[in-house]
Amino acid sequence: MCGYAYYNGNGGRRDSIRIPLDDRSIFFGDAVYDMMIGANGKIYQAEEHFERLLKSAGAIGLDHGFTVDKLISIAEECIKKSELQVYSVYVQLSRSSEGRVHSALGCVGANILICIEAAELPRKLCEVKLCTSEDKRYRLCNIKTVNLLPAVLYSTDAERCGYDETILHRDGYVTECAHSNVFIMHRGILYTHPLSELILPGITRRHLILSAKMLGIRVIEEPFSLPELYSADEVLITSTTKLIRVATEVDGISYKSEDREICSALFCELLRDMLP
Amino acid sequence: MCGYAYYNGNGGRRDSIRIPLDDRSIFFGDAVYDMMIGANGKIYQAEEHFERLLKSAGAIGLDHGFTVDKLISIAEECIKKSELQVYSVYVQLSRSSEGRVHSALGCVGANILICIEAAELPRKLCEVKLCTSEDKRYRLCNIKTVNLLPAVLYSTDAERCGYDETILHRDGYVTECAHSNVFIMHRGILYTHPLSELILPGITRRHLILSAKMLGIRVIEEPFSLPELYSADEVLITSTTKLIRVATEVDGISYKSEDREICSALFCELLRDMLP
Repeated sequence: MCGYAYYNGNGGRRDSIRIPLDDRSIFFGDAVYDMMIGANGKIYQAEEHFERLLKSAGAIGLDHGFTVDKLISIAEECIKKSELQVYSVYVQLSRSSEGRVHSALGCVGANILICIEAAELPRKLCEVKLCTSEDKRYRLCNIKTVNLLPAVLYSTDAERCGYDETILHRDGYVTECAHSNVFIMHRGILYTHPLSELILPGITRRHLILSAKMLGIRVIEEPFSLPELYSADEVLITSTTKLIRVATEVDGISYKSEDREICSALFCELLRDMLP
Repeated sequence: MCGYAYYNGNGGRRDSIRIPLDDRSIFFGDAVYDMMIGANGKIYQAEEHFERLLKSAGAIGLDHGFTVDKLISIAEECIKKSELQVYSVYVQLSRSSEGRVHSALGCVGANILICIEAAELPRKLCEVKLCTSEDKRYRLCNIKTVNLLPAVLYSTDAERCGYDETILHRDGYVTECAHSNVFIMHRGILYTHPLSELILPGITRRHLILSAKMLGIRVIEEPFSLPELYSADEVLITSTTKLIRVATEVDGISYKSEDREICSALFCELLRDMLP
């Protein structure tokens, strides 16, 4: 099964969908997106994801006629057509224009692309090996756009070297990963970079902070340095498709996993909260 | 005439060309491009542009089977089919993969997209109004990729406020424009940012430096500050489609145009060199 895709009202097998050249995702990456998971016709945290999508669209001045309810209704229809039981839901809104002109001032309306693919729900706390790299990305990381070439390059290098994800650092401080947020746990306290133009406001990041507070764990949203990363008790990364994963090593340095029980408790609390 | 386009062997009217979802330009902006102008079957500076395109492809590890000669031959065939006398030639190479996976390690081969559109050749030194903005772009600006959302946002804001282009500055120093390189002329000397990951190695930029030397004008490739920009005798921007243009104002500050004759001489020299 290659999955189901939908573009501006037309749906079908993923490999049957074609995009016209006036979709500015092709020439400029002039598009925003969000990614969700779901099961049995449902999308987990649908409202939060679609609200973030429309916020991203607003941030780039994308003129669209969608509401959260309308988007959920289209996505649920696509899920039905896909006949999948457990799936990821990818939704992209892009700008249209005739000809390749940088300014978007004359652009009207948005294109909508949805892809439903088979997925697995996260069921246990998984371990990952991480590397680090300098954060060379633009300072619009709070907007979820398809200008993702840096994430592609970081992820390719990581996979080539046997790592699962790349932790990024800017001016000596950890921001986030190529496609996850990152936390450290040290002496029982969770630390993560505060919301700013340097990181994505991750939905699992937000839920992890809430789950930690539920379990009486203090959370400090402040930048932490590379030496603090290396000397932490635990390193956790968060994402929509995996919830949280815990590092066994970063740049070849092993972690003692002293707080693994707390990490497991956090995973269970997140599971209860996000995938009930 | 809406122009001619070509994708992986199929050509036709621009509005008839469709791109499959497995072209990673759509999900990731995982593509490089170059833009040229030409007339009467010819492409100006074809070798330089296609060499830069293949260098960009190499910089992102894009596995393609093209040579400069092969690309020129495909582009010239497209120009013939377009039946246009004066045109722009847009060439994009993107990566393919099945499914949306960040890492490009499993990707094989490249897609080629070419668009031929009607254009006008630059024939006289034009004047422009410029504004400035903080350079928030990634630090891969030396690679010509389609991660162009910042350029779209700068260009949209500029047009909305009645400006033709945006000069970008990082840490107080001018880098380049949203889609041009920038020079200042002060006391008879031309200054421009040196080649680095912060600017595109513009082909017109390179030819302007050569033309200046031909005319006995000293060129210093060093970063200049915002105050130096505002107090310069002239501000020049360079691009493939317009060669050089001269600023009448930046951020509302008017320039006295004291060196307009030298700018005109530079334009004529560039015209002779680049559009013979």
